[in-house]
Amino acid sequence: MILLQFDFPMTGPWGAEMAEAFRDLAEDIAAEPGLVWKIWTEAPDENRGGGLYLFETRPQAEAYREKHAARLAGMGVEGIRALIFEINRPLSQITRAPL
Amino acid sequence: MILLQFDFPMTGPWGAEMAEAFRDLAEDIAAEPGLVWKIWTEAPDENRGGGLYLFETRPQAEAYREKHAARLAGMGVEGIRALIFEINRPLSQITRAPL
Repeated sequence: MILLQFDFPMTGPWGAEMAEAFRDLAEDIAAEPGLVWKIWTEAPDENRGGGLYLFETRPQAEAYREKHAARLAGMGVEGIRALIFEINRPLSQITRAPL
Repeated sequence: MILLQFDFPMTGPWGAEMAEAFRDLAEDIAAEPGLVWKIWTEAPDENRGGGLYLFETRPQAEAYREKHAARLAGMGVEGIRALIFEINRPLSQITRAPL
């Protein structure tokens, strides 16, 4: 399994308003090929948003990274940071990781 | 719950060797106050390591961020990026997040 880490400058919406604005997008992402889960992150005080994704395979994570970066750029988002990581399983197991 | 996202330049060890080198540290981190889980991330091809943490409260995440950044600096790590995020629960629920 592969971890995809997105973060980028964002000025809102946050919280319940964000949940309302992106509900359809979340349902679309939930059906993304190979997606195990996504955690939606937000730092309103620092004007930063993001997401953490677990994918079954690296090609799926790479395809989604390209697609989502283009989607964010289309929303006017700049300064996107999107990193793909392998997971160290033995260490993650010791720290109760949900894999 | 609060998400803490660390990443930083690193030249290894990776994989099984990394798991061996940091086993004691992982056991120490597993006992960190308020830690729900940590996922250990590694990108050997990009010389980058990191970690994703779920904490019960923001003060616990902040205390750990300070402690871990100092520990990494003590290992000679520079260019540490350590961000704290809130979690958007309704959206994360739609995408099956393990919270």
